[in-house]
Amino acid sequence: MSHKIYTFDELRDLFIKYSEKKIITAQPSGLYEPVNYIMGLTGKKIRPVVCLMVANVFDENLDHALPLAYSIEMFHNFTLVHDDIMDNASVRRSKPTVHVKYGANSAILSGDLMMIKSYEHLINCCSDNDLKFTILQLFTDTAVKVCEGQQYDMEFETAENITLSDYMQMIELKTAVLLGGAFKSGAVIGNCSDKDADHFYDYGLNLGLAFQVQDDFLDIYGNPDVFGKKPGGDIIQKKKTFLYLKAMELTEDKEKLKMLYNSDNLPEQEKIDKVLSIYDHLNIRQATEAKMNELTAKAETHLNSILVPEENLAVIKQLQKSLLERIN
Amino acid sequence: MSHKIYTFDELRDLFIKYSEKKIITAQPSGLYEPVNYIMGLTGKKIRPVVCLMVANVFDENLDHALPLAYSIEMFHNFTLVHDDIMDNASVRRSKPTVHVKYGANSAILSGDLMMIKSYEHLINCCSDNDLKFTILQLFTDTAVKVCEGQQYDMEFETAENITLSDYMQMIELKTAVLLGGAFKSGAVIGNCSDKDADHFYDYGLNLGLAFQVQDDFLDIYGNPDVFGKKPGGDIIQKKKTFLYLKAMELTEDKEKLKMLYNSDNLPEQEKIDKVLSIYDHLNIRQATEAKMNELTAKAETHLNSILVPEENLAVIKQLQKSLLERIN
Repeated sequence: MSHKIYTFDELRDLFIKYSEKKIITAQPSGLYEPVNYIMGLTGKKIRPVVCLMVANVFDENLDHALPLAYSIEMFHNFTLVHDDIMDNASVRRSKPTVHVKYGANSAILSGDLMMIKSYEHLINCCSDNDLKFTILQLFTDTAVKVCEGQQYDMEFETAENITLSDYMQMIELKTAVLLGGAFKSGAVIGNCSDKDADHFYDYGLNLGLAFQVQDDFLDIYGNPDVFGKKPGGDIIQKKKTFLYLKAMELTEDKEKLKMLYNSDNLPEQEKIDKVLSIYDHLNIRQATEAKMNELTAKAETHLNSILVPEENLAVIKQLQKSLLERIN
Repeated sequence: MSHKIYTFDELRDLFIKYSEKKIITAQPSGLYEPVNYIMGLTGKKIRPVVCLMVANVFDENLDHALPLAYSIEMFHNFTLVHDDIMDNASVRRSKPTVHVKYGANSAILSGDLMMIKSYEHLINCCSDNDLKFTILQLFTDTAVKVCEGQQYDMEFETAENITLSDYMQMIELKTAVLLGGAFKSGAVIGNCSDKDADHFYDYGLNLGLAFQVQDDFLDIYGNPDVFGKKPGGDIIQKKKTFLYLKAMELTEDKEKLKMLYNSDNLPEQEKIDKVLSIYDHLNIRQATEAKMNELTAKAETHLNSILVPEENLAVIKQLQKSLLERIN
């Protein structure tokens, strides 16, 4: 190993220290306070750490990767602030959402500011304009897709006849592309080859998809002691999850499942049990596990194609394990 | 004259033709339709034409300036879409605002998309990354300031003790910097010297300030036949205009003017007449004209410092005249 490879926790600490120096003290405080508030909430910081982690595969010095990681985190938080208004969500990371704390107008405008600031951090990350333009293209393509994903997500709530492939496209756009982008941006700032940068992208994308499908899986089959909530919340909220859409694809009585899933007059536990019994009958658990395995295998094929010393990828493999091991 | 200099109308036509090719047909249509709607509304298109006009000072070929002009127009429209939500405005360019037509969530998300797309058009305007980087810095700085200006504008509605200098700062941030940025971006894409590019910026900035002060002036002293609305609308809406704040600065009985301006129980015309009588007593008309003249003179000093053949600036001088001649 030619240089130090940091662990996830070390990178997260580095990132948090860097973030603390980025608190905005400018005026008007009514614009900047909501930005400092959301950026200061404790979160997993997976996306910025991923960017640093990949940059670290190629270089011990992370001076150029840190502002880039910060840009990605700020973009992600901008989407959270605006999505929370659209979804009428009142809690984020156990705290009031920005629009609840500061009002919808502040949340719109401070979100806009964060979007612009995420570009500002990006264009100041280093002095190599050609390299920055590659990242700018990636960042902008990704941002467009994230908006498209949010639009599909909003439309899906009321839309009829959503298919499993619609769903996979939606989660790809809404969340997986940003993870792919975080991986690839770290590769680009690390001066990686185009081919390997694309492998990092596809690795992150498939990992993101697997993680999202797992999220749906855990809502039903997760260990409540580990997962921290009662199984079946998605069923009560009538969420069009991978499991429901897979069941709709497989069942011979689509009308029956649809009516049951959208019914409001059954006791909650009875509704959950009835849906679960259909899932069991259709082997939805196995089908979902198969999908997660397929996506994970696809991700790994990309990671294994990258031409760097294997030991430099060890922390990435460990991160993957920690992201995808919540099933057991 | 070494190359063709286009008129305002010719540039506007060029821009509109270019815009028609930029209509987005991508999916999801729920995201892109509001963008096409607002971008398709008839408007003066001053900012994009300004960008083209300055680029045309240096070059007949506007291939690189057109996407840049489009980026500026899209950014401007993004701010309109979000500001209209915040201001609860229902009409824009004689048509329903985006949030009225498509709902607030669509207006937020499609506005976000426009912000990102404005960066996309910018980073694809030409292949010179160093030059684009200069424009990106300018664009991003300007965008941050526009958000700050909108925040101040919202705060001013309820804030006490706003001064004239607060007001000048607010209109500079909210609107004048974008006009300055439009002028400067045209200069940068035209490969102008840094010094002259800054003169273009300061010219546009001061022109923008003069235009905003004129807007307040016309609400009271404009010819209703020309201006198209009854005088005194700002007084009825209790808007903290240049005129009101100048009067507050000059009057010896601030409480009296403040109470009158914020009163709701007088008949509209009586309230307007009473405020006007105070304005007359304090020579507010003359003070406002003096400010407009001062700003215009400052603008002209910058324009006259620019080292290009005078005839290349003729259309810009004509534009200035048409923007500032509504007073008479």
